[in-house]
Amino acid sequence: MRLRNVKNAKEQIESSSYILLEPKEFRGNFRKLFDNDNPIYIEIGMGKGQFIINNALKYPNINFIGIEKYDSVIVRAIQKIGNMDIPNLKLIRMDALEINDVFDKEIDRIYLNFSDPWPKDRHEHRRLSSIKFLEKYDLIFKDIKNIVMKTDNRKLFEFSIRSFNNYGYKIEDISLDLYNDDHELNIPTEYEDRFVSRGQVIYMIDVTK
Amino acid sequence: MRLRNVKNAKEQIESSSYILLEPKEFRGNFRKLFDNDNPIYIEIGMGKGQFIINNALKYPNINFIGIEKYDSVIVRAIQKIGNMDIPNLKLIRMDALEINDVFDKEIDRIYLNFSDPWPKDRHEHRRLSSIKFLEKYDLIFKDIKNIVMKTDNRKLFEFSIRSFNNYGYKIEDISLDLYNDDHELNIPTEYEDRFVSRGQVIYMIDVTK
Repeated sequence: MRLRNVKNAKEQIESSSYILLEPKEFRGNFRKLFDNDNPIYIEIGMGKGQFIINNALKYPNINFIGIEKYDSVIVRAIQKIGNMDIPNLKLIRMDALEINDVFDKEIDRIYLNFSDPWPKDRHEHRRLSSIKFLEKYDLIFKDIKNIVMKTDNRKLFEFSIRSFNNYGYKIEDISLDLYNDDHELNIPTEYEDRFVSRGQVIYMIDVTK
Repeated sequence: MRLRNVKNAKEQIESSSYILLEPKEFRGNFRKLFDNDNPIYIEIGMGKGQFIINNALKYPNINFIGIEKYDSVIVRAIQKIGNMDIPNLKLIRMDALEINDVFDKEIDRIYLNFSDPWPKDRHEHRRLSSIKFLEKYDLIFKDIKNIVMKTDNRKLFEFSIRSFNNYGYKIEDISLDLYNDDHELNIPTEYEDRFVSRGQVIYMIDVTK
């Protein structure tokens, strides 16, 4: 995802106190960074940040880290935070492929929201719920492995159910139409708001291992 | 499910050569009944029989057994068969709860089509994909355990995905919208035809253990 006309994106990112410019320095020590022993939840592909920012505001006793690859998107999250003081939130600009260089046995939950479906078979390994990534995630979880995924993409969701199932994850919760279920506690992403306004079905799955 | 005005249902059932009136007599020996070593697929809750009859006609090298609780429905299946000669098809009038009294280590696949969703929590154990039934099925499978389920009921499907997953089944195939996938080989039930004509989504899952 790339946005047009984001001027000075690089400067805005580098000057934000929410951004960890050298995240590898904290590998294995993210609890020290937050200066507490609270759980750490990360969102891989946070986009413009609505989900992770609202989570951080709602749950001050959980630490949140938003991960995003593109400058032009992450700068929107920084703009959303503005002058707010959210001590339990950090942002990292990185490719998900590098996740094991940044985290080590310290994450309690991974959120995958509206991830790129990579619809072609030959790109299966690029999907964030593919075996390749599940193997990477194994190494960053602290104790219980917990992934919570939302998507509007049926094919990606079918693939992900199979992938989690076949990798030994237990399904704690699943919804094939989140907005027709009890979803009072749900925090939507920007994409999600748009899809729901068009009447599209939102899928959700919560798995543990 | 009960139908009105089915006259002489009992007589029609008892006089049909397709009906096994004393199925327990064949327990462990259903291959002998069919006089071949072909796989045996059963449908639990076959309703009016369209699915199992069309399967038997299409796949003569597989033995099919349709199971249904209600006289008034099973008689419709008998009427559908009419004068056709389908040596690889048998029908049993019984309650699914009795399945272990009838089969023993001899079934290759179970079809669950548009089963009663039993929506109330306290009726969970009555759902044909509940742990209670999965335990029963374990004892009737010959070798690889294989269940193929279709339903229009979202809540039943969500429950079933979790149930299969948590019981150790591997998901071989899943569709959250069967009629928008490749479904050329799909054989519809009577219910399914009606639901599809109304534009309802059909869910399908194929699991093995």
